[in-house]
Amino acid sequence: MPIALQRERFVSTMKEQAEIGGTADGGLHRLTLSDDDKEIRDWFMEQMTAADLSVRVDEFGNMFGRRAGTDPDAKPVLVGSHLDSQPYGGIYDGALGVIAALELIRTLNDNEIETEHPIEIVNWTNEEGSRFQPAMQGSGVWAGAHDLEEEYAKTDVDGTVFKDELERIGYKGDEPCEPPEEYEAYLELHVEQGPYLEENGKDVGVVTGIVGFTWGAITFYGEADHSGPTPMHYRQDALVAAADVITQIRRIPSTLGERTVGTTGYIDAKPNSINIIPEEVTFTWGFRDPSDDVIDEARRRVLEEAEWAAEREGLEWEYEDRMRAPAVEFAEGCVDAVQTAADELGYDSMQIFSGAGHDATHMHSICDTGMVFAVSENGKSHNESEYTSWDDCYAAASTLANAAVDLAGGAQ
Amino acid sequence: MPIALQRERFVSTMKEQAEIGGTADGGLHRLTLSDDDKEIRDWFMEQMTAADLSVRVDEFGNMFGRRAGTDPDAKPVLVGSHLDSQPYGGIYDGALGVIAALELIRTLNDNEIETEHPIEIVNWTNEEGSRFQPAMQGSGVWAGAHDLEEEYAKTDVDGTVFKDELERIGYKGDEPCEPPEEYEAYLELHVEQGPYLEENGKDVGVVTGIVGFTWGAITFYGEADHSGPTPMHYRQDALVAAADVITQIRRIPSTLGERTVGTTGYIDAKPNSINIIPEEVTFTWGFRDPSDDVIDEARRRVLEEAEWAAEREGLEWEYEDRMRAPAVEFAEGCVDAVQTAADELGYDSMQIFSGAGHDATHMHSICDTGMVFAVSENGKSHNESEYTSWDDCYAAASTLANAAVDLAGGAQ
Repeated sequence: MPIALQRERFVSTMKEQAEIGGTADGGLHRLTLSDDDKEIRDWFMEQMTAADLSVRVDEFGNMFGRRAGTDPDAKPVLVGSHLDSQPYGGIYDGALGVIAALELIRTLNDNEIETEHPIEIVNWTNEEGSRFQPAMQGSGVWAGAHDLEEEYAKTDVDGTVFKDELERIGYKGDEPCEPPEEYEAYLELHVEQGPYLEENGKDVGVVTGIVGFTWGAITFYGEADHSGPTPMHYRQDALVAAADVITQIRRIPSTLGERTVGTTGYIDAKPNSINIIPEEVTFTWGFRDPSDDVIDEARRRVLEEAEWAAEREGLEWEYEDRMRAPAVEFAEGCVDAVQTAADELGYDSMQIFSGAGHDATHMHSICDTGMVFAVSENGKSHNESEYTSWDDCYAAASTLANAAVDLAGGAQ
Repeated sequence: MPIALQRERFVSTMKEQAEIGGTADGGLHRLTLSDDDKEIRDWFMEQMTAADLSVRVDEFGNMFGRRAGTDPDAKPVLVGSHLDSQPYGGIYDGALGVIAALELIRTLNDNEIETEHPIEIVNWTNEEGSRFQPAMQGSGVWAGAHDLEEEYAKTDVDGTVFKDELERIGYKGDEPCEPPEEYEAYLELHVEQGPYLEENGKDVGVVTGIVGFTWGAITFYGEADHSGPTPMHYRQDALVAAADVITQIRRIPSTLGERTVGTTGYIDAKPNSINIIPEEVTFTWGFRDPSDDVIDEARRRVLEEAEWAAEREGLEWEYEDRMRAPAVEFAEGCVDAVQTAADELGYDSMQIFSGAGHDATHMHSICDTGMVFAVSENGKSHNESEYTSWDDCYAAASTLANAAVDLAGGAQ
């Protein structure tokens, strides 16, 4: 029989966390290592302690709470997400996965259910990457993808150093930032942040993997000149070439795959004056797809387009690769556990690839990993208008809880 | 017989002025109403006094020096340009026209040549518009195109008020900023800032008018969303639409006229983050042509393109007209005087439309107006690499001088 979360307590806990760093418009402003982050961490520490968890904080601020299993040799199942938010994000992104993990522990306690494997819950430091880059920083250091000292030295726009802020809020713990032992599995619940579950009328998403992506920047170098007396055929206009490539970044995905997306999110033009031909323009590309071959092909095409655009305008140009995350396919065992849980709970589910990166991206290199998606209305996220109904939150949390118990050897 | 300027004195005076606000790379940093502007004004005042001119400074800082004519009822011929520069401009833009006017006066004095009409030379305040907008400000107020008090209240990027700076450098004069009487004609020598004279192997340009222009800005309103999980067909990407229109702004001129130019000089994207679909993008258009019909058609087409681009991306949009300067055709008498002077001096000339605005734009509404162009090597200007050979400077200055004397009733 599936275990049943207490819906009322779960919803009120979600509302309680949303008050810390809550905005007037119903969103969250809870930037990593801010005073609000300290407050939500203090609150989460209290909840873990109240749930009799054995708590650890590592030297990067990642917070763990473990509930022992019956078999002293069994590897723990890790469940969690993040409590930090975008500058003006929603109340579900990240927090839903942490609160669901906490509610799982409370439910096991209430019903005195034991599991063979320990179950550990986690709040990862700085998933969002808004204040300090990169995103998924805490899980990345923990999983060995980033160097601890390099990440300590990162600064925000005001020049504040990551490590200083971590110490200031009192969350530079004593544990090394690395797995203390082998793990059985990692499970994460997150809002979809896309429209597919809602579009297909589903209750919950069984995530089969995470799209990979390529990020980079192209700079065109033209020549600044007076926009009046300079004939068109004398011009070397860096912005025209950038515009050419940006329209292609909109077009390339439609030639590659159903799930391919491409975006220019950033552009900077110099000298940026109405009356001067733009001399230097930098802009970014970003492509995502479940297939690494498609991602590499999209990158190849955008660079080809840049070469052609530079030739047309007579420009010098260069590019910089900024990130290349491989596509991740989740372990069959984890996907099956999530699918089985959804089925047993009677939820209408679909298997889906995640279009965004999550802490699960890094955990994939440590142990078998899986994810549950909750419905995002209108696919909105990173925005105060992000919304998931309590029904959908509960469905996803219940699926997560049962899948976790399953992976931990079942309820005993 | 044409009057002959003293080449050596003319060149050394050009070099002397270039030392005030001169940059290490041989350009000028002589922003309007700066300490350097005060210094060049003090220097120019000395030169005018030394040339026995009757000097006036008006309440907007425009500086005039008059040499009497033989007929007390004859209207004066005004000759000049501006001594302020772009932040990193060349040593010819503006200054060449003022120094040529000064050298004309000195030559008349040296040779005791009298003219029927008075000849007045002028240094207009703030032609460049780099520090305080708009460009051609001093001549604009003088000609009644702008309101004095409104222009007094303008501020630079540091919030410094125009009127305060004018008083600080001691150039808020007592004369009203308006024509004290009717004028016979206005002549201005300026560097071409375009490549046509050099391309055609000419010594000097006989300017027949100034292109008109339309300036405006378009803003697209899309929706910010995560660039990963948002499918392409859900997107309302403001930057893609802007890019579409910018490529059209490059293309439209080629469908309209030989001299039509179109430029997007400015773009601003929000939130301008690699990982977020752009929500709001503002960018500018600028079109210039000798024909007002062509200018209006270019503006109509860019707005049509914006409408189509907005429809394709599902965006809201709006536009703002920022400026519409009609094309100016110079008076036949002035064009003839310049052409005749060039011919008599044996210079190979061509008639040409100015692609940039000049103080002559405003003077056109006050009296018959004409211009002389000096060759700009590679068409470069608003740039420290702006260059005109001394031969070309001298040819243009000599043409200006003889045309001015002609319009003033001839040498007596």
